Amino acid sequence: PSAVSCRGMAKSKFEYVREFETPDTCLPNCWVVVRVDGRNFHRFSEQHNFTKPNDIRALHLMNRCAQNVMEELKDICLSYGQSDEYSFVFHKKSNWYKRRASKFMTHVVSQFSSSYVFYWKEFFTDQPLLYPPGFDGRVVLYPTEQNLRDYLSWRQADCHINNLYNTVFWMLVQRGGLTPAKAQDRLRGTLAAEKNEILFSEFNINYNNEPLMYKKGSIILKKKVNEISKKMIKLEGEEEREVEVSRSRTQFPILHCDIIGDMFWDENPDILTSES
Amino acid sequence: PSAVSCRGMAKSKFEYVREFETPDTCLPNCWVVVRVDGRNFHRFSEQHNFTKPNDIRALHLMNRCAQNVMEELKDICLSYGQSDEYSFVFHKKSNWYKRRASKFMTHVVSQFSSSYVFYWKEFFTDQPLLYPPGFDGRVVLYPTEQNLRDYLSWRQADCHINNLYNTVFWMLVQRGGLTPAKAQDRLRGTLAAEKNEILFSEFNINYNNEPLMYKKGSIILKKKVNEISKKMIKLEGEEEREVEVSRSRTQFPILHCDIIGDMFWDENPDILTSES
Amino acid sequence: PSAVSCRGMAKSKFEYVREFETPDTCLPNCWVVVRVDGRNFHRFSEQHNFTKPNDIRALHLMNRCAQNVMEELKDICLSYGQSDEYSFVFHKKSNWYKRRASKFMTHVVSQFSSSYVFYWKEFFTDQPLLYPPGFDGRVVLYPTEQNLRDYLSWRQADCHINNLYNTVFWMLVQRGGLTPAKAQDRLRGTLAAEKNEILFSEFNINYNNEPLMYKKGSIILKKKVNEISKKMIKLEGEEEREVEVSRSRTQFPILHCDIIGDMFWDENPDILTSES
Amino acid sequence: PSAVSCRGMAKSKFEYVREFETPDTCLPNCWVVVRVDGRNFHRFSEQHNFTKPNDIRALHLMNRCAQNVMEELKDICLSYGQSDEYSFVFHKKSNWYKRRASKFMTHVVSQFSSSYVFYWKEFFTDQPLLYPPGFDGRVVLYPTEQNLRDYLSWRQADCHINNLYNTVFWMLVQRGGLTPAKAQDRLRGTLAAEKNEILFSEFNINYNNEPLMYKKGSIILKKKVNEISKKMIKLEGEEEREVEVSRSRTQFPILHCDIIGDMFWDENPDILTSES
Repeated sequence: PSAVSCRGMAKSKFEYVREFETPDTCLPNCWVVVRVDGRNFHRFSEQHNFTKPNDIRALHLMNRCAQNVMEELKDICLSYGQSDEYSFVFHKKSNWYKRRASKFMTHVVSQFSSSYVFYWKEFFTDQPLLYPPGFDGRVVLYPTEQNLRDYLSWRQADCHINNLYNTVFWMLVQRGGLTPAKAQDRLRGTLAAEKNEILFSEFNINYNNEPLMYKKGSIILKKKVNEISKKMIKLEGEEEREVEVSRSRTQFPILHCDIIGDMFWDENPDILTSES
Repeated sequence: PSAVSCRGMAKSKFEYVREFETPDTCLPNCWVVVRVDGRNFHRFSEQHNFTKPNDIRALHLMNRCAQNVMEELKDICLSYGQSDEYSFVFHKKSNWYKRRASKFMTHVVSQFSSSYVFYWKEFFTDQPLLYPPGFDGRVVLYPTEQNLRDYLSWRQADCHINNLYNTVFWMLVQRGGLTPAKAQDRLRGTLAAEKNEILFSEFNINYNNEPLMYKKGSIILKKKVNEISKKMIKLEGEEEREVEVSRSRTQFPILHCDIIGDMFWDENPDILTSES
Repeated sequence: PSAVSCRGMAKSKFEYVREFETPDTCLPNCWVVVRVDGRNFHRFSEQHNFTKPNDIRALHLMNRCAQNVMEELKDICLSYGQSDEYSFVFHKKSNWYKRRASKFMTHVVSQFSSSYVFYWKEFFTDQPLLYPPGFDGRVVLYPTEQNLRDYLSWRQADCHINNLYNTVFWMLVQRGGLTPAKAQDRLRGTLAAEKNEILFSEFNINYNNEPLMYKKGSIILKKKVNEISKKMIKLEGEEEREVEVSRSRTQFPILHCDIIGDMFWDENPDILTSES
Repeated sequence: PSAVSCRGMAKSKFEYVREFETPDTCLPNCWVVVRVDGRNFHRFSEQHNFTKPNDIRALHLMNRCAQNVMEELKDICLSYGQSDEYSFVFHKKSNWYKRRASKFMTHVVSQFSSSYVFYWKEFFTDQPLLYPPGFDGRVVLYPTEQNLRDYLSWRQADCHINNLYNTVFWMLVQRGGLTPAKAQDRLRGTLAAEKNEILFSEFNINYNNEPLMYKKGSIILKKKVNEISKKMIKLEGEEEREVEVSRSRTQFPILHCDIIGDMFWDENPDILTSES
């Protein structure tokens, strides 16, 4: 018992170490973007037999994880994903955990990672998960709506460029019979128009007809909707009758549209304006 | 096709947004500690019927996750866990990802989170996981070995104090028939010695005999061992014969000992001295 | 000589210490404000016999120093000063010294401090400077023009409140014969209207007629002007004749107007819009 | 008056802008080094006719400024200067201004800059100061005594290398009649031994006999000394008699010795150990 109380006292003696934690508050009034990226996903996708250039199961799983992140964490108004990465936009007015950068990034990456394992079997019904995958995360601040939109445009342009390249590359390998090295040589220095031409003339593929999710990635919105359901009630001294019950619910619809141009933003004016 | 090449050009127009990423290098020659903490684990433990005050399955699962983190990530020389938290010590000379704080914390918290779901069913054989759990993470730097040891002592002292409290609290509730509120009242302001006395005189429990893992938490070391196995070989013109083959392997043994005093450190001198 | 070359080699051995410098880049596209504050200026003003509540020489010296800072350092588009403090606004697009926070604040505070001693005797002709004064400095980022204007409004509102208080306080002491403690008691909890009333009814002072520099502080702008001068020239085979020569010059005019309302900003639209 | 109270209220409306200040606490238990560097001192030294390669007046002025910084600011245990730079070492246990980096660097650079102008005429009796000079400053943290000593060794090795080069360079120009460009060519790629040889064989100069301040720079210590003075006192009913009065005073002696080797540190063991 006396040893125990000694230890008890000891704790206060050690507590000075808390002062080594340094504050990492994000500048107020800036959009907070957390981007999650797969770690060693080249190897992971091979070991789990991902279809090339796009594995639709893997993309849907990524989207499901992002939805879970948006359901669980506060103040995320939009997310955008492609390939093995996902970006989450916290509202510039968010004061979640006093805007501590470490809280933003670790909560997102943790929820995303546990969801990835949790929902795996819903999407990969025939392919067991062999080991727990890893992701990294980072926080970036954007002071203006224009900077934020340019960030999202950058990721969608990246999606486009990579997907066009990968689509041709894997055609050359899978149907053209080239080795990966030869396919790479063939594509070195080609412009987008030339890649389109190869697809069309050699493989009869019109890139424009490729699935939107592959070409544009996935945008997840947060929408408050009123669900109206009907319910029978019976008040004392009255006949039983049907009434409408309205309940506010938040949905997280997934889109695959262009977010570089103005149209998306004009049609969804409240994404960035409304505060959570 | 022309639209496509437009987009292609667009990417470079947006790339300026990368400059908004701010560097977060950790000061060289300092110990880097990443601590992972369960998010809303009070609720999580109730919904998954954790035994109180300690659920041995949950603690073993935490340990398994920490081992996975140490297997997967570089330069972790020690980890310490208790309750729903785990601390990982990266060597002060580590230059992993150029010592970027965000890399340290997000890789750890991601690997820990995905492992938690992945290994869940090995430890909770009868209790399904209901939803993906979340953890947060933080990075703290310690310039000297003494500061680092004091950090670890702080966590172990915290483990001790909480475990003693929880042990008595749950005895009063589970066997003493008190409501949680009454148990709390009873314990308010009591010293360690008084808590020990309640356990002993009312429940015939000697706290010293409680399991070490509950009282001390778990320490995971990284040990390089030489595994020697025997193998039959046959060289040309010789008889087949048995030879010994030595292979270096890294093990991650789990201990439940005191790390506040000097003995542990004297007996394991290479934990903090050896690089990588 | 051999010792010398040893030392020479030594330098590279020590150069690793440079890696302990941590980057402190300011977030792009934000207004960078550096505020300079007098250190121990209460004592300094007493030892140098400053007139209370406002010493016009000291205020003009502060303004001269701020002009020197704006002349010497790049990208400052506006400064605002009152009492013993001065704020400098670097343009949000500035890339001076790669936007390193330490460069912004130390260059400003250094130039301000050396100017203060250098120009002292121009303003304090009869009062020698007794010792080198000190200032501190800090950097704050503002993402939007509104935030920046609110910062400047905050400083001007502070100027107003302090000056009204000090004007009444020193009247009560200097002409009312109260001790400082009594004057403080008298003013405790009074509203602005009451302070105005004391000034008017007891000292026949209409606060509105107090000098603008005291009530509003000083704003320094940066104005590019074309100076046109006349010059006689003589070309070969021609008569000597007068020509006009135009030369671009930067001026730093000092104003004492309201910057809280919109008028100032409407009348000076290019302060915040024009780059550099 | 009503306008006045409006403004008064306004202040609280603007005060939210204070939250944009971000904390910049230095990691505890690390040595804090602030280095001050002359801004555009090449031009400054030419315009003020500094003697080349070393102007003794300028070096003494730098030392005087550093002493003033050490007198005025708390917790500096050592400083080291050479050429137009000076480094100040704050004790690792210092909690001055809660260890805010901006406070450390701006206070030092401000005090240094105002001192430079203030003390100028004591050292440059015949050369007026033409304009207020500027310095920049930076903060670097060093976790261990070895790192700190290596930092100081780095600066002293830099002093040595530059001074040897400059000594030969200016000999070649001033006495050898070479143009600066020719002198540069001559020295390109030469080792220290060769530079010594040029000095010796062509100019009959033994570099070892050059002044220590040029070769080693200047170290300023902080020494508490007891000054004992004699005083006549007369107690009631006694004869007047002489007594010794002891008074603790802090001195800032300037040295020009080697600080790379161990000797200096062995002979001054309390520089780094004693807490202010």
